[in-house]
Amino acid sequence: MKVGVLGATGYAGQELVRLLKRHEEVGDLYLASSSVAGEDYESVYPHWSGQRVGILQDENVPDLDVLFCALPHGLTAARTSAFLARNIKVIDLGADFRLNSAQVYEEWYKVKHPASELLKDAVYGLPELYREQIRGQSLIANPGCYPTATLLALVPLLRHNLLQTNYLIIDAKSGVSGAGRGGGLGTHYAEVNENFKAYGVGNHRHTPEIEQELSRAAKVPLTVNFTPHLVPMTRGMLVTIYAAVQPGIQEEDLRECWKEQYEREEFVHVLPLGAWPQTKFASGSNNAFLQLTVDQRTGNVIIVATIDNLMKGAAGQAIQNMNLAMGYPESQGISGTALWP
Amino acid sequence: MKVGVLGATGYAGQELVRLLKRHEEVGDLYLASSSVAGEDYESVYPHWSGQRVGILQDENVPDLDVLFCALPHGLTAARTSAFLARNIKVIDLGADFRLNSAQVYEEWYKVKHPASELLKDAVYGLPELYREQIRGQSLIANPGCYPTATLLALVPLLRHNLLQTNYLIIDAKSGVSGAGRGGGLGTHYAEVNENFKAYGVGNHRHTPEIEQELSRAAKVPLTVNFTPHLVPMTRGMLVTIYAAVQPGIQEEDLRECWKEQYEREEFVHVLPLGAWPQTKFASGSNNAFLQLTVDQRTGNVIIVATIDNLMKGAAGQAIQNMNLAMGYPESQGISGTALWP
Amino acid sequence: MKVGVLGATGYAGQELVRLLKRHEEVGDLYLASSSVAGEDYESVYPHWSGQRVGILQDENVPDLDVLFCALPHGLTAARTSAFLARNIKVIDLGADFRLNSAQVYEEWYKVKHPASELLKDAVYGLPELYREQIRGQSLIANPGCYPTATLLALVPLLRHNLLQTNYLIIDAKSGVSGAGRGGGLGTHYAEVNENFKAYGVGNHRHTPEIEQELSRAAKVPLTVNFTPHLVPMTRGMLVTIYAAVQPGIQEEDLRECWKEQYEREEFVHVLPLGAWPQTKFASGSNNAFLQLTVDQRTGNVIIVATIDNLMKGAAGQAIQNMNLAMGYPESQGISGTALWP
Amino acid sequence: MKVGVLGATGYAGQELVRLLKRHEEVGDLYLASSSVAGEDYESVYPHWSGQRVGILQDENVPDLDVLFCALPHGLTAARTSAFLARNIKVIDLGADFRLNSAQVYEEWYKVKHPASELLKDAVYGLPELYREQIRGQSLIANPGCYPTATLLALVPLLRHNLLQTNYLIIDAKSGVSGAGRGGGLGTHYAEVNENFKAYGVGNHRHTPEIEQELSRAAKVPLTVNFTPHLVPMTRGMLVTIYAAVQPGIQEEDLRECWKEQYEREEFVHVLPLGAWPQTKFASGSNNAFLQLTVDQRTGNVIIVATIDNLMKGAAGQAIQNMNLAMGYPESQGISGTALWP
Repeated sequence: MKVGVLGATGYAGQELVRLLKRHEEVGDLYLASSSVAGEDYESVYPHWSGQRVGILQDENVPDLDVLFCALPHGLTAARTSAFLARNIKVIDLGADFRLNSAQVYEEWYKVKHPASELLKDAVYGLPELYREQIRGQSLIANPGCYPTATLLALVPLLRHNLLQTNYLIIDAKSGVSGAGRGGGLGTHYAEVNENFKAYGVGNHRHTPEIEQELSRAAKVPLTVNFTPHLVPMTRGMLVTIYAAVQPGIQEEDLRECWKEQYEREEFVHVLPLGAWPQTKFASGSNNAFLQLTVDQRTGNVIIVATIDNLMKGAAGQAIQNMNLAMGYPESQGISGTALWP
Repeated sequence: MKVGVLGATGYAGQELVRLLKRHEEVGDLYLASSSVAGEDYESVYPHWSGQRVGILQDENVPDLDVLFCALPHGLTAARTSAFLARNIKVIDLGADFRLNSAQVYEEWYKVKHPASELLKDAVYGLPELYREQIRGQSLIANPGCYPTATLLALVPLLRHNLLQTNYLIIDAKSGVSGAGRGGGLGTHYAEVNENFKAYGVGNHRHTPEIEQELSRAAKVPLTVNFTPHLVPMTRGMLVTIYAAVQPGIQEEDLRECWKEQYEREEFVHVLPLGAWPQTKFASGSNNAFLQLTVDQRTGNVIIVATIDNLMKGAAGQAIQNMNLAMGYPESQGISGTALWP
Repeated sequence: MKVGVLGATGYAGQELVRLLKRHEEVGDLYLASSSVAGEDYESVYPHWSGQRVGILQDENVPDLDVLFCALPHGLTAARTSAFLARNIKVIDLGADFRLNSAQVYEEWYKVKHPASELLKDAVYGLPELYREQIRGQSLIANPGCYPTATLLALVPLLRHNLLQTNYLIIDAKSGVSGAGRGGGLGTHYAEVNENFKAYGVGNHRHTPEIEQELSRAAKVPLTVNFTPHLVPMTRGMLVTIYAAVQPGIQEEDLRECWKEQYEREEFVHVLPLGAWPQTKFASGSNNAFLQLTVDQRTGNVIIVATIDNLMKGAAGQAIQNMNLAMGYPESQGISGTALWP
Repeated sequence: MKVGVLGATGYAGQELVRLLKRHEEVGDLYLASSSVAGEDYESVYPHWSGQRVGILQDENVPDLDVLFCALPHGLTAARTSAFLARNIKVIDLGADFRLNSAQVYEEWYKVKHPASELLKDAVYGLPELYREQIRGQSLIANPGCYPTATLLALVPLLRHNLLQTNYLIIDAKSGVSGAGRGGGLGTHYAEVNENFKAYGVGNHRHTPEIEQELSRAAKVPLTVNFTPHLVPMTRGMLVTIYAAVQPGIQEEDLRECWKEQYEREEFVHVLPLGAWPQTKFASGSNNAFLQLTVDQRTGNVIIVATIDNLMKGAAGQAIQNMNLAMGYPESQGISGTALWP
């Protein structure tokens, strides 16, 4: 199988390279970078020294079986139909194909959608929730990191009508690698270290993606409060979710729902009672961890979910989607446990 | 003035020493430690080398004007009436005098209150909210760190009936110094670094303290969901609060309420529109920073507040209370801006 | 193949478990812990949830092909001859079999060696330097982390007599995981974070191990100054080495010597000119990275080497030794590049 | 007294502002920035909110008593004679006046010195070593951070001829704030965190400054190996120094020499036997901490010194120099102990 990566020197791109190099079905790798085409991958990333990753290509995409697009939103959508016409399966780690509605896209991203006619063909690539729709697909929208953690926690509970939908709070926390490799004060070590802050309060672009998928699960349109925060750490993501449970529903009903959904899943783990997720449980792996409790005093459920933002939140899930699209075992190349400590 | 500290080698105790050493009204210092009495302070904390802090005493308290108790809950309450009888003002950084109700204390702390008869004499030492009650007082309950940040944000808004009281979410994040100097896996560097987690979900002991003070402000009993998290940093605390606004109330009304409350305060700062609090803004200072936005889509307000957990959340506020109790200028010894970066 | 680990819940032990679980030749795993025998591995380390690692055993070792001992020095040496008599190959990650001389061991470790008669049978397990001696061996002393990084850099240069031996400075820096999972102030997050210090100055126990192997390479007895430091990070180790070059020797001679030694090695990489090692290059991998320059003004060479202290510095190298001892491909189960970022 | 700062929004500049705002002799502050002139200081640094620091000025310097220049090398030297002609005392935190020789400056900084005629008038502003020369001076070169830590440790020992001068190794480690507020990959959180590296190996520009002052102390020209490293922390600096002691000299002689030099100093502390410096001992303070041991096996002394790179290594020492130049008590505005933890 020939596989390519556009944006191969970003953090998600480099993580894809790491995973693809150890995937047994992957032969030739086409790695492209618009900014450093022509340079040796090892000079960009010396930790690859001696591994013969090769020279970075420009974005003239050759014939491939699968192409991963790890580019900022808007940059590849316009070229996607050409890729599809050449029978190249496209897995987009950007935002262009995640929203069903070009209008919602334009509201939140402030640009016209470059290929709205393709939206109906794209599948939302969250395998544990939409596995059958992903198999064999040619255009897969890899979910955002925050939506992945949030949807794994909430979608089963909403599908079974266990939660009220009018007051959903998603308080999210991410490591800095989620901001990408671009510099500036926002990622300067001395401004991030020993510091914690909220950002994008009330206007983060993962909001409509979360709302779309939660509304689909609940079969009613709903809105959420989604507040991301920046944690002084490199990798990892944790979401704390607050919702009111439906009358008569107990903590055990919620846990049972999760267990039914996930008991045969390799990557999603409901922790034993009393064990709460930590981001480090997932670090370097494609795993997700879930826990919840119902506060009897307020009648609300408190849910915590964690993933590695670059793995299950980006590159790992993208490989999982590739495996489904190509008919390989779903966990090929992405099995394994977190690096600890 | 003669001042003493019980628990002078814990993190809050050492911070008190730092502040008291530079306070112009403080003469002799009595510093006690149950675990290392007899040792030189400089051998416990070599960064004090050459500063002649002196030998740590046992807990036989001499005659003093003010005694700070920085001990775990339950350890000094039984001795407090004796201190008061000797005309020693007591500022308790522990939890023993924060709750008005001995019964609530016993529910959450699982021990009988050691001196419930004193509860009616204790004042809750949050100067920006209860300044007049604190002046000249002899028994001051220094608030918890999480309650301080939360109450500064919410009390004015609830006093003016601007928020609904039936769905209050307090998602809180703290640096590790809040856990104290005791060791164990929970504070082991390799288990905390590059990690983020929730803890005490649904049962943290600052919950009843928050509820007591919010109920008092709202003049109705209310409950909250309070979830603390551990941030991989040493100092700092940030709370993100979600609430429904009362019908007809706008974002500007909320900001106006804050400004009226705090415009003459030295330590509490409402940030300009668009600037959101970061824990580092407060680090090493007694300052608090506030910001909010009303999400038009959900009708909820999102509030962020930050303090330094060891300063405004502990030792700094304790000095502020001492100044009020003794009639000194309120900011003496605790003025100043954060250490940056 | 049946494999066991004594000390399976320490950091090196857990890393062994991670590597053994993905090693294709490893069947049954015997995992022992003296402190938490009887507990489920997943309750000690919840990131293993759902992976069925099993119950921790006591130290009654069953029949095995290979036993890894990841215990403090002195705890298994006394039992080693019994293991060997049962045809169990022993790979000791502790210090008991690293020094050839029981007398030197006793000087530095302050205890009598528990099994000095076995010292002559043990091989020093640094595969890139002693590969042929390790093949098929039954008792392998896995090198210390600091010695591994130091010896990879210096042994080839001393074997070829390129450096003077009378002034060797090894200034070493390690992440906190090297201190193990034990608690206490020395590993407390708030005392380590935003802090950097030297420790064990002039008396660290890796000194004689380094001197033994460097003397062997130089064929003269030599001493070194070895100073370890603690870096506020979890994983990683870097050594900066200073030495005077022999008269007439140029920088290029030193690089050439390294290249000859390592050009066919999978795990040891001499970086291109101008690229200097960073600990993160090795993090999570079994790789080592080297660089040097000769300062024309002083005539000294400055060498920098980095490894992951838990991989090439402990568990990864131990698996490499197992592969050599058992006749498997040397890199089986330990290939791969660092986790970045 | 009217005081100004050029470069008031860099890290050293902001630290100067913090110190000047609490200095009792300082009245009006002129704060200039070439990049953000016209902006409110509080909008650049929101932690100053409510403190009325004022609007940032352009670089048209008004009449002042003292001007601090916290600019990159080369930017203010050309204007210095004009400042001096206006009776403005100049304290330069940059490198332009630290080297006595314009030729050495040009070798290391690769530009012609902009005002070599002033070099003879500048005094090297390390008060504990050159106090009398600094008093009343008008042009003070504030030392580099690495030189400050190194010279405090070595100058007294070399002045008394206790060390050999032919093999001096200075292995230095700094927090990230030393790199300034400029962005880029080199200070990106995800590339610095959980990482440790050497940089500027063999060619760092603090080398000639160190050599100049050590040669002056030893009264012979000497060279050193100076290797800086980047520590994943924000503040702090530690140097580990290796040297051969002169024949017959004992550890106690070296300690005695330090004690004589520093026993009356407020800011330099020789730690008690067995206590080794940690960067956190100095963090946020103007203090320096020293310790040493002589390794009997190699005959070398190992010295460790620590300072806060932004305080004693930059802004704190600059204020100390201002106090000496103006005749104020030397520690005014910069007393105090580290922030701990």
